[in-house]
Amino acid sequence: LERRKGSQRGTTSRKEADKPNILSGVFDGKTTGAPITIVFENTNIQSKDYNFAKEIPRPGHADFVAMKKFGGFNDYRGGGHFSGRLTVGLVAAGVIAKKIIKPIGTEAYLISVGGSKDIEKVVNKAVEEGDSVGGLIECKISNVPIGLGEPFFNSIESLISHIVFSIPGIKGIEFGAGFKSAEMQGSVHNDLVVDADGKTSTNNAGGINGGITNGNEILFRAAVKPTSSISKVQKTVNIKTGELSELSVKGRHDACIALRVPVILEAASAIVLADLLLIEQKIPKVMR
Amino acid sequence: LERRKGSQRGTTSRKEADKPNILSGVFDGKTTGAPITIVFENTNIQSKDYNFAKEIPRPGHADFVAMKKFGGFNDYRGGGHFSGRLTVGLVAAGVIAKKIIKPIGTEAYLISVGGSKDIEKVVNKAVEEGDSVGGLIECKISNVPIGLGEPFFNSIESLISHIVFSIPGIKGIEFGAGFKSAEMQGSVHNDLVVDADGKTSTNNAGGINGGITNGNEILFRAAVKPTSSISKVQKTVNIKTGELSELSVKGRHDACIALRVPVILEAASAIVLADLLLIEQKIPKVMR
Amino acid sequence: LERRKGSQRGTTSRKEADKPNILSGVFDGKTTGAPITIVFENTNIQSKDYNFAKEIPRPGHADFVAMKKFGGFNDYRGGGHFSGRLTVGLVAAGVIAKKIIKPIGTEAYLISVGGSKDIEKVVNKAVEEGDSVGGLIECKISNVPIGLGEPFFNSIESLISHIVFSIPGIKGIEFGAGFKSAEMQGSVHNDLVVDADGKTSTNNAGGINGGITNGNEILFRAAVKPTSSISKVQKTVNIKTGELSELSVKGRHDACIALRVPVILEAASAIVLADLLLIEQKIPKVMR
Amino acid sequence: LERRKGSQRGTTSRKEADKPNILSGVFDGKTTGAPITIVFENTNIQSKDYNFAKEIPRPGHADFVAMKKFGGFNDYRGGGHFSGRLTVGLVAAGVIAKKIIKPIGTEAYLISVGGSKDIEKVVNKAVEEGDSVGGLIECKISNVPIGLGEPFFNSIESLISHIVFSIPGIKGIEFGAGFKSAEMQGSVHNDLVVDADGKTSTNNAGGINGGITNGNEILFRAAVKPTSSISKVQKTVNIKTGELSELSVKGRHDACIALRVPVILEAASAIVLADLLLIEQKIPKVMR
Repeated sequence: LERRKGSQRGTTSRKEADKPNILSGVFDGKTTGAPITIVFENTNIQSKDYNFAKEIPRPGHADFVAMKKFGGFNDYRGGGHFSGRLTVGLVAAGVIAKKIIKPIGTEAYLISVGGSKDIEKVVNKAVEEGDSVGGLIECKISNVPIGLGEPFFNSIESLISHIVFSIPGIKGIEFGAGFKSAEMQGSVHNDLVVDADGKTSTNNAGGINGGITNGNEILFRAAVKPTSSISKVQKTVNIKTGELSELSVKGRHDACIALRVPVILEAASAIVLADLLLIEQKIPKVMR
Repeated sequence: LERRKGSQRGTTSRKEADKPNILSGVFDGKTTGAPITIVFENTNIQSKDYNFAKEIPRPGHADFVAMKKFGGFNDYRGGGHFSGRLTVGLVAAGVIAKKIIKPIGTEAYLISVGGSKDIEKVVNKAVEEGDSVGGLIECKISNVPIGLGEPFFNSIESLISHIVFSIPGIKGIEFGAGFKSAEMQGSVHNDLVVDADGKTSTNNAGGINGGITNGNEILFRAAVKPTSSISKVQKTVNIKTGELSELSVKGRHDACIALRVPVILEAASAIVLADLLLIEQKIPKVMR
Repeated sequence: LERRKGSQRGTTSRKEADKPNILSGVFDGKTTGAPITIVFENTNIQSKDYNFAKEIPRPGHADFVAMKKFGGFNDYRGGGHFSGRLTVGLVAAGVIAKKIIKPIGTEAYLISVGGSKDIEKVVNKAVEEGDSVGGLIECKISNVPIGLGEPFFNSIESLISHIVFSIPGIKGIEFGAGFKSAEMQGSVHNDLVVDADGKTSTNNAGGINGGITNGNEILFRAAVKPTSSISKVQKTVNIKTGELSELSVKGRHDACIALRVPVILEAASAIVLADLLLIEQKIPKVMR
Repeated sequence: LERRKGSQRGTTSRKEADKPNILSGVFDGKTTGAPITIVFENTNIQSKDYNFAKEIPRPGHADFVAMKKFGGFNDYRGGGHFSGRLTVGLVAAGVIAKKIIKPIGTEAYLISVGGSKDIEKVVNKAVEEGDSVGGLIECKISNVPIGLGEPFFNSIESLISHIVFSIPGIKGIEFGAGFKSAEMQGSVHNDLVVDADGKTSTNNAGGINGGITNGNEILFRAAVKPTSSISKVQKTVNIKTGELSELSVKGRHDACIALRVPVILEAASAIVLADLLLIEQKIPKVMR
């Protein structure tokens, strides 16, 4: 699985083998048509790191809402169900989806971290300071057939944004010119069609008109917030006693989770495209 | 219905009564528990305006993709299923949803048009030039209980973005600090909890942690692209002949659809909140 | 629409034109790819017939449960959302589905009424006595490709029974040998395969193995209970006062709703088949 | 888990420990609100038993349709995804659902096997003859609140039948008087309401009117076909060569799978009831 690509470039001090254990749906090296179950075991758990989370919620983290929503029964260790670790399932599904959608390709990459292109420098500084930092990622989807997307309610932007906002830490998404569109005039924003196949001279639409692919490259960007768990001392509140408190989050935390996100965005995109190709009846039979 | 609020401030030359015709689900002025069907008739149609769309796709519009996806059988008049007019259904559903979610309130408003706060001036200029212009809208949801949202796959951001990207012309969405988060450090982005109810000193998270409401105001912004239909002459291609062509879109078009979007965002938000309250079993019985 | 086929053979004293009013999704006589909305208006309403239903529930009818479930706000006139009239929507959808699934054919017919093959006699007797009577219907689906059905949870029996039990008055469904299977030995029940295409010598399985079509005719039967609304005097309770009461239901009621059900079963079957063909990517492109 | 209840009374020569391995969603002996993953490992596999299934489909079994649907890539060992073993997942979910729906109770039991009440005798005879035999099961659901069920499309009969037909071997389902209803008159079939709580003197409706529970006991019966795998010699076809063949299925097979089904029906019912209680907002908070 490709998930490690991100962390190879990353700064994590965690050791997670991410070895997939396929429990169902594969036989003699081929998928059988039955549901595929893949389990990844956590082999390097240090749960004692997280005992504080029962009373003192980490600022910016899901500790507090999980405690409230689940009546105190949530698993507070390692973020439990809110851990970024859960994205390994998306990545695993994406490995399969990428094979299904060929020759459609997905490529995501970091544009900036902490607002800077000098990514290594910014991340190292955050590590030194016991802080964390956000990042901006772009994703391109190429060789896209015309006609994918099911508006009114299931535009391709709706489907991609739905799955992308499942990834912990994402706080924004924009397609094509995105937020810049709000500042533009129609005569500038409109992509001019230059041939009968629908190729356009610009791509302000991000390859999508009316929620449907137009055959040009799909282009979107996602904003990743900085990791909430930092060793730098922060003020917070003990929600049992109501008393103000200070917190320095121990344990092994990524200084920049954005480094891990490109491969997840690729996976998420491939999953959406596979679904839409199936609706359009464009999955080749030989694969099935 | 409140939909006219937008266009009262707007610039449209259309006359659309938007009179709701309730066909089912209401009896003696009350909902019955049966599905509610509301029909809005188009009473002011001038379909001849759109005959060009069969061969010459409007740049930036869904004409081309609709023609390709539906094998030429799409209804090209007035944008058909891709018309902004279809949002009247969302607004109607929102009127009901707003009653259900009380005391939760939704409020959306224009922040800027064409990048400027002087909205009237920018829109008038676009009208004069036969052009159009995009806009930025912010939406606030207040009195939100803690614990709404169903991650992993149905975070509240996933659900809101899904429905928001169903609205024609939306090209970006961001929650809380949004795209700015990508430039921030954790020690700055983390909202400090200041009391045992989870109130925070800042709201960079937009009222959401881990995909679940934290009790603070939900805050998001959406970018609306400029209307694609403009009377200003644009280059395009005749997709039957492949020849280059010029197009000036006649007919009655909004110079700034963003003016109409706030009430739609309020409706969309209320619909999502109503669903999540039902999942959390928090819809008061007296209403049901 | 074919819905009148049933009542032409039937005994109803109702006059219902069932004229479809297509509001969306059709243009120049062809479907456009947009959702199709069809409205059937009730043109022959005599609501005063139903005023009793507010306090005195008809035995065997949904009056009581509707009142309880919807807190007294249900529309009690004509059965409201529980009227058999609502099946006209299924039939309309079925008209379209039947075109999509060609050359698959669906054929349903009455086997017996009140346990007798002399259907006319039994119905006439019920009419004379101010009573009603149930019936048994069989449905055959022919020219079925091998491989339709999505077990574990969406076996073709699951999907057909789900929609069939949406039809008011259905109390049982069985596939192939059905309830007789419970009395049989495997050596008798097993259908012997007689050629490499999977043709079988018998059809105890009703054309389905493991929830998936085997290429033989799909065969199922559905039991329809007698209409609950009868003019014959019945004992019941006034649920406001708790007092025992007697009731003779006035108004125009079918003595045997089973007469109307065959065309609905055909429609329901066609809808399920259309969905499954789409999942299997077997809907011809020319139709789309 | 209670699944063994069936087989304790049964005749299987299989040894399957059915030990649940809970991978997620439980912490400190309580559910956390995160999805629950339970894995049951097959510890007693003798796959060589099933090699014949690649070419010679067992009459009445899913071998043939699986081969066709999945292009020959299906896992033919032990029936793969079509094995009755997969119902262990339903039973496990049912254990949880039964706790959620309290004080609603579910009870299912065998009525007859091979058409006889002398169940032991009939099963023993089938074992001796290398044959198998079907059975009839009844399920009662007690302490049911009024108002569960979501017609038009999600009547409680629709939901129960949908999940029940997911259980391998089920060929029919009927509610209340069921198929007998088709032979009855309304004046006989209608259950008379005897108090203001809706209690009825008879229960021909099986506790359901208009697809909604009426507060009386829910009652349904399901027909289970005889196991298709029998050691008795059967005629079939080699689907590679088209030649007629004979088959005696070796391996360990239940002579009467109906013995195992009661606990599965209880589980399936409890799952449906839990869903409907949640829709009606009637799951007690203390549990959540």
